[in-house]
Amino acid sequence: SQQHKNLHLWKPLCIFGTGDLGRSLGQRLLQTGYRVVYGSRRPDSCGPVPQGAQVMSHTDAASAANLVFLCVHRDHYDFLQNVAPYLKGKVLVDLSNNLKKNIYPESNAEFLQRLVPGAAVVKGLNTLSAWALQNGQLQGKQTFICGDSAEAKQAVSEVCTRLGLLVLDRGGVGASRELEDFPLQLFPMWRLPLSIALGLSAAFFLYLLIRDVIYGYVEDGKDISFRIMIALPNKVFPIVSLVMLSLCYLPGVIAAFIQLYRGTKYRRFPDWLDCWMLCRKQIGLLALGFALIHVLYLFILPIRYSARHKFISQVKNKTTPFYFDKTTAWGTDSLMGLGVLGFFLYVLLGISSLPSVGATLSWREFNFIQSKLGHLTLFICTAHCYIYGWNKLLRPSTYKWYTPPGYMLCLMVPSVVLVLKVILLLPCVNRTLTRIRQGWERAPPRGHPEQLKATNF
Amino acid sequence: SQQHKNLHLWKPLCIFGTGDLGRSLGQRLLQTGYRVVYGSRRPDSCGPVPQGAQVMSHTDAASAANLVFLCVHRDHYDFLQNVAPYLKGKVLVDLSNNLKKNIYPESNAEFLQRLVPGAAVVKGLNTLSAWALQNGQLQGKQTFICGDSAEAKQAVSEVCTRLGLLVLDRGGVGASRELEDFPLQLFPMWRLPLSIALGLSAAFFLYLLIRDVIYGYVEDGKDISFRIMIALPNKVFPIVSLVMLSLCYLPGVIAAFIQLYRGTKYRRFPDWLDCWMLCRKQIGLLALGFALIHVLYLFILPIRYSARHKFISQVKNKTTPFYFDKTTAWGTDSLMGLGVLGFFLYVLLGISSLPSVGATLSWREFNFIQSKLGHLTLFICTAHCYIYGWNKLLRPSTYKWYTPPGYMLCLMVPSVVLVLKVILLLPCVNRTLTRIRQGWERAPPRGHPEQLKATNF
Amino acid sequence: SQQHKNLHLWKPLCIFGTGDLGRSLGQRLLQTGYRVVYGSRRPDSCGPVPQGAQVMSHTDAASAANLVFLCVHRDHYDFLQNVAPYLKGKVLVDLSNNLKKNIYPESNAEFLQRLVPGAAVVKGLNTLSAWALQNGQLQGKQTFICGDSAEAKQAVSEVCTRLGLLVLDRGGVGASRELEDFPLQLFPMWRLPLSIALGLSAAFFLYLLIRDVIYGYVEDGKDISFRIMIALPNKVFPIVSLVMLSLCYLPGVIAAFIQLYRGTKYRRFPDWLDCWMLCRKQIGLLALGFALIHVLYLFILPIRYSARHKFISQVKNKTTPFYFDKTTAWGTDSLMGLGVLGFFLYVLLGISSLPSVGATLSWREFNFIQSKLGHLTLFICTAHCYIYGWNKLLRPSTYKWYTPPGYMLCLMVPSVVLVLKVILLLPCVNRTLTRIRQGWERAPPRGHPEQLKATNF
Repeated sequence: SQQHKNLHLWKPLCIFGTGDLGRSLGQRLLQTGYRVVYGSRRPDSCGPVPQGAQVMSHTDAASAANLVFLCVHRDHYDFLQNVAPYLKGKVLVDLSNNLKKNIYPESNAEFLQRLVPGAAVVKGLNTLSAWALQNGQLQGKQTFICGDSAEAKQAVSEVCTRLGLLVLDRGGVGASRELEDFPLQLFPMWRLPLSIALGLSAAFFLYLLIRDVIYGYVEDGKDISFRIMIALPNKVFPIVSLVMLSLCYLPGVIAAFIQLYRGTKYRRFPDWLDCWMLCRKQIGLLALGFALIHVLYLFILPIRYSARHKFISQVKNKTTPFYFDKTTAWGTDSLMGLGVLGFFLYVLLGISSLPSVGATLSWREFNFIQSKLGHLTLFICTAHCYIYGWNKLLRPSTYKWYTPPGYMLCLMVPSVVLVLKVILLLPCVNRTLTRIRQGWERAPPRGHPEQLKATNF
Repeated sequence: SQQHKNLHLWKPLCIFGTGDLGRSLGQRLLQTGYRVVYGSRRPDSCGPVPQGAQVMSHTDAASAANLVFLCVHRDHYDFLQNVAPYLKGKVLVDLSNNLKKNIYPESNAEFLQRLVPGAAVVKGLNTLSAWALQNGQLQGKQTFICGDSAEAKQAVSEVCTRLGLLVLDRGGVGASRELEDFPLQLFPMWRLPLSIALGLSAAFFLYLLIRDVIYGYVEDGKDISFRIMIALPNKVFPIVSLVMLSLCYLPGVIAAFIQLYRGTKYRRFPDWLDCWMLCRKQIGLLALGFALIHVLYLFILPIRYSARHKFISQVKNKTTPFYFDKTTAWGTDSLMGLGVLGFFLYVLLGISSLPSVGATLSWREFNFIQSKLGHLTLFICTAHCYIYGWNKLLRPSTYKWYTPPGYMLCLMVPSVVLVLKVILLLPCVNRTLTRIRQGWERAPPRGHPEQLKATNF
Repeated sequence: SQQHKNLHLWKPLCIFGTGDLGRSLGQRLLQTGYRVVYGSRRPDSCGPVPQGAQVMSHTDAASAANLVFLCVHRDHYDFLQNVAPYLKGKVLVDLSNNLKKNIYPESNAEFLQRLVPGAAVVKGLNTLSAWALQNGQLQGKQTFICGDSAEAKQAVSEVCTRLGLLVLDRGGVGASRELEDFPLQLFPMWRLPLSIALGLSAAFFLYLLIRDVIYGYVEDGKDISFRIMIALPNKVFPIVSLVMLSLCYLPGVIAAFIQLYRGTKYRRFPDWLDCWMLCRKQIGLLALGFALIHVLYLFILPIRYSARHKFISQVKNKTTPFYFDKTTAWGTDSLMGLGVLGFFLYVLLGISSLPSVGATLSWREFNFIQSKLGHLTLFICTAHCYIYGWNKLLRPSTYKWYTPPGYMLCLMVPSVVLVLKVILLLPCVNRTLTRIRQGWERAPPRGHPEQLKATNF
């Protein structure tokens, strides 16, 4: 019948190159129902190819197919000069990647198009690994293609869709350098958050090192350098975690105030704010990681030699009757109770940011978790930190060398975020903001058409 | 060639509305290879649109396309009355959502169809957020459509499939209210489990507050109210966790007994049981959450001021020689060993219920984890609880004001579940149940055709 | 228009069998936009079918459709003999599964083809459960089909693609036994890693039981059997975890040395190495599981009765002045600091191996996490273990009955892996290895064509 097209009756697909990638791609295409021919320099001794595929010379293979996948390193493109006449009018898919960025003056795909001007070169599929192809991890994976011929791209796109890939068209062959740089990316979205986290950690570590260890050594002559391993990090990690968590919610608050000030949502935020908002997820996950380390350190505390030694000395040296201070009991228990609750919410936020969990949430649910629950977590963790310091605030011994302790410094950012958030939740402010976000504008944008032109998407 | 249809040669798709959603949708369609035109009230000053798209007046844009996406709030539909003649015979996709349920007498899509009677209105894509569209989180996501014209739905469905969405047809335009209510849902499956968990927590908290804190205050005049923060919750959370875990396996056991009693699997379960079985996953995850909090509380115990104070008093006041009780050592170590094992299995169950992990399991593997491993977890956690109370059972001081302690109350439900499960595992019972589940029936259903009619799917 | 084919105008799809699977499949097909007819022995009393589907006799239903889904147990295939004439030229999809492997001489699909020789039998979709069909958990799920008619397979494949499935063609009907065995699999990839983990655990448990418990009983007459619950497992679990983690990185190192020795990457690894490399993920996850149990045990330590008793005795019996040993403080703090860091990295590795997280990583990112971060984790955990034993190495009391303690034994494997890895990272070795992995060969393979023929893919 008309509706049941038979893939097996089509022309076969051709693959140049019998390396890992070529073999895996061929195997996959065969499993999807295509016929596959390989082009090889040495058809008789080219090593194993998947069962069901044929191996021919490059020219024979090119003649047999309309679509040629090039799974060969750019360094070995020279053979294509002889094959070029046979590739005329065919679609040539360039899957190659380089080992480093910017080592060639032009992208591989552009170089290829110059070598084989008669073929329609399509760059694409280069983000796939032989491993993913072999193990069937393709479903729903995004892949990008680009090329100057819309027909050629459509042909490649159909094969990709059958392989289970989601194809995104990136335009002409000029985009190929960008596509070739994709597989060389190493956590581009994590760079900034990681730098902030490491910078904050280093700064607070140094600050606390001076206050806690060096101060004791200089003023009292005590060597408590062993604290560098546990006691100090256990102050640095929660401090940085709380600061990072508030940095995660600060841009949203700033954005709301900008919208309120401008009276419209149709003007672009400044670049730094856009950039900040895009890496909120990464900032939050780093905050969670630091909180986890804090929790692990905390649980390990009572097993430490120094903690046990201190405890025994306390018991031995106490000669006065030992009375139970209910306020202290309430204080430490509240501190820890809030800590447990805060960490639990932290973990919930982390789980909901897993891609597969997030995908099952409706927009309203995602918003509820990341906004409502997120601000609640920030509030609880801030309260946890306030309770930790509540009775140390007025003791002079707290201010060694006239410096405030670390937790006081770190409380500044979350306090500001929470105060600003409370302002935004005031009924009058909230009403205006909601209207703006639904499209209402305080002044029509017609007055500043030149400003609008300056914005881009 | 015939098989390589060129998307670029098709008529463009039209989008009405240049807000967040309209722009994100257009960008996505452009990336997928479609041409896009925007219809706008002010084509010259409508703000930024994605590169490659054209902006026209509503009527021009409608004329250029066969498919029109309406990304406009229902409040602004009035402009459509003028555009209606140009939309005759076109497919009009209504993506709108409302802020609350039931604020209009008819659904947006029905209202739209009345406004533009000549167009084929399709409701759909309204569960997508601008954020998901921009960030390419569409692959494999479900989306629902409904509408009276099968051809129009098919056209929309093809565009959606190209975007990587999985389209589910919900029938005629009458289903549009249901579709419009989807994005307003807030964890509908979690409501009942969450209510049960909170109700149980409140009940046990009150019960234990009376037994532990108020009893001490009334009878001995001691103020131990600080226990409200840690000691009390650390009893409530494990109790509720165990009850929830057994509530997770109780409906399966009840269903098996119903099937055994009826002698067939072809009759529907009562509604309350169906409903209960559908939210077992949520009940189990809540049980895991409560168990996690219990574990966190437990690890925090030795760091508390009150614990350390109690310990020091113990050391100070003990004047009699202090001997080592092997039975107590065995008891506490077994208690904790089982606890660790139980929590580990709990976490395994939780991980296997992540959507992406569950998707990699075969049905038999999923069944093994959720049934075999689940009942083992229940057994271990129940044993953990029994060991906790084994030496307190016969002490009169346990029964303050003649009430049993909380752990005794909570042991009832899991004990019942485990006993019933053991009965079901008896060879003779198990054999009958397996036969019933394979389709065998004790009495042919032909005798009660009127009963069958009463059941629905 | 031509491009908008209407599914509703097609012939309906037919389903034989109104059980769970048949009903769920039908409901799903209806939701996707197909028309569905059921064939039943008792069309008037066959129980509920999804709304919108028709129920007919088998022969009527078969006549109405081109594609018939058979959702019936193999035991009930006999009715097909009467229906066979009506199935001539139709596509018959066999979804059946068996309860055990190898209970019939021929596969269900082959048996079916013999019963209905005129139909084109396609085996497939048998990995889907009624549960997954009902709950829409199909997106991107792999399903296998096989059959002798390419046209029939293409027809089935199109329906599957519309359901959101990824179809893989496994060849002729001869592959049907393999397909029927899929749903009966129970963690085939976990068998070997689990056996290794349990074997190692049992061996170390016995070894430590003799050294710690039995030695004390025999030599000193002390009964410390209660240690079996916590103290002993807390030695066994970290030991096995470290060994498993190093076993996870050993095959990669061995493979590199084999490639260096052979001077080519084009020859297959021995079977045992291939098999080992394929289950590295499972080995690593088991190592993570054991590390988690170790951490839980560790945190529980200070709450135990025996730990508190020992502590109190220490306090009571110490009459000599008690001084603070800085070296011990540094030692235990370093031990625990490294432990926390190692466990944190362990958890990161575990999270990145979640399917949905792994799918978002580029190949270079995945490689960075699993290789760089993995070896760092191994190094930190090994250092953690070395620090644990650093001051016990030279004490004679360590070598009870002339046996080394468990942590010394377990350090051997990770130490070997780390030394070999350091050798591979030496510039001269690394350069050669990189060239080999880019396709360079020390000797051209032309000299040994007979060897190449012996390899397979």
